[in-house]
Amino acid sequence: MMIDQSKRSNKPAVVLLSGGLDSATVLAIASKQYECYTLSFDYHQRHRSELKAADALSILFKARQHSVITLDNAIFAGSALTDDSIDVPLDHPGGIPVTYVPARNTVFLSHALALAEVIGAADIFIGVNAVDYSGYPDCRQEYIDAFSVMANLATKTAIDGNHLTIHTPLIDMTKAEIVKMGDSLGVDYSKTVSCYQADENGMACGQCDSCRFRKAGFDEAGLSDPTLYAGS
Amino acid sequence: MMIDQSKRSNKPAVVLLSGGLDSATVLAIASKQYECYTLSFDYHQRHRSELKAADALSILFKARQHSVITLDNAIFAGSALTDDSIDVPLDHPGGIPVTYVPARNTVFLSHALALAEVIGAADIFIGVNAVDYSGYPDCRQEYIDAFSVMANLATKTAIDGNHLTIHTPLIDMTKAEIVKMGDSLGVDYSKTVSCYQADENGMACGQCDSCRFRKAGFDEAGLSDPTLYAGS
Repeated sequence: MMIDQSKRSNKPAVVLLSGGLDSATVLAIASKQYECYTLSFDYHQRHRSELKAADALSILFKARQHSVITLDNAIFAGSALTDDSIDVPLDHPGGIPVTYVPARNTVFLSHALALAEVIGAADIFIGVNAVDYSGYPDCRQEYIDAFSVMANLATKTAIDGNHLTIHTPLIDMTKAEIVKMGDSLGVDYSKTVSCYQADENGMACGQCDSCRFRKAGFDEAGLSDPTLYAGS
Repeated sequence: MMIDQSKRSNKPAVVLLSGGLDSATVLAIASKQYECYTLSFDYHQRHRSELKAADALSILFKARQHSVITLDNAIFAGSALTDDSIDVPLDHPGGIPVTYVPARNTVFLSHALALAEVIGAADIFIGVNAVDYSGYPDCRQEYIDAFSVMANLATKTAIDGNHLTIHTPLIDMTKAEIVKMGDSLGVDYSKTVSCYQADENGMACGQCDSCRFRKAGFDEAGLSDPTLYAGS
């Protein structure tokens, strides 16, 4: 079922869109009610093919604007996602994995906050999920709540009386529930890239944390997985 | 009196350094106790000569590293500090002025947080001041406190048990007190740029909010003002 775009308001919202499965679903949810300004980041991530996916998804869901912000190379050092000398692990030994990117969601949300101020939006959407996830501290609801308190002290928008809301529609959903919801909202998951080390065409490794969560989600949801996996 | 650099520890700290009077003083304070990693931003501000000032100050106070992060042009739109079509006001009619830059300190502190993670620092210094200031919401202690709570939920540093502290040594000081302290710590204020519309050589207008606070500070402190003002 595709969204009836005629039902959405002109109320603007910023949607953080990596181009992965989660944020694609968030965009589908947000676009039911808001005029979406999608925001992606080029942070020299291994899986930059996700940026092409973000562009395709922005078009699919008729975003008003898709911005790709280039972040300075110096900031996100020391993660397996940005440093070619650190391998993406194929298992998950517990704790915060080496794919953790320092303060990533804080940097992303800060830019979203600035964009929200510029376009006059009081709503920001982010696809964090604390069920089938890699254990990053900045994916938890308590972190988002704290960011929200801070955002409502930081900005002219808030001082002018417009409460800023950080929406996390996926926070308590399993990957299977996310996939089912997105499927019902018309998300074409073949356009999304989740793999931490996807190649330039979006071909997935099928083995990293992110691939494993994704595969299990489709399996559990009883939906066919449209992902292109290397060697399959 | 110059700082005795031999007394400082090897404990790293990130110091946000605009190149203005306040952040120069903060660097002087931080460098007494920490090995400082100074962090500046090129956000296409009118007064980019402050970046040269930041570099000179980093050398003067023997910072371990001075990083200048280039921010994407698209983010800080709609401020008199970044948009040539909006004049810098020469009076202060009350409320948040047009020189406010959307979510600026949040974006700056987020990058500082990422850098802190990368270098293993648990201390960040910022020269916000809520006495002689332009009324920006993100210069108040309650905002900084909220950022700190968020930062301590966001990061691996905090999860690993190292409490992150955002230091605001100037928060309750008058401009005169700041200037007196900096002077006693060896800050060469001729190297700092405060003016919102300083020219490429750092020549100040003498009329904007920032110039007026600065001038009054030197006057009240009974110190000579080394600033080069246009037309004087």
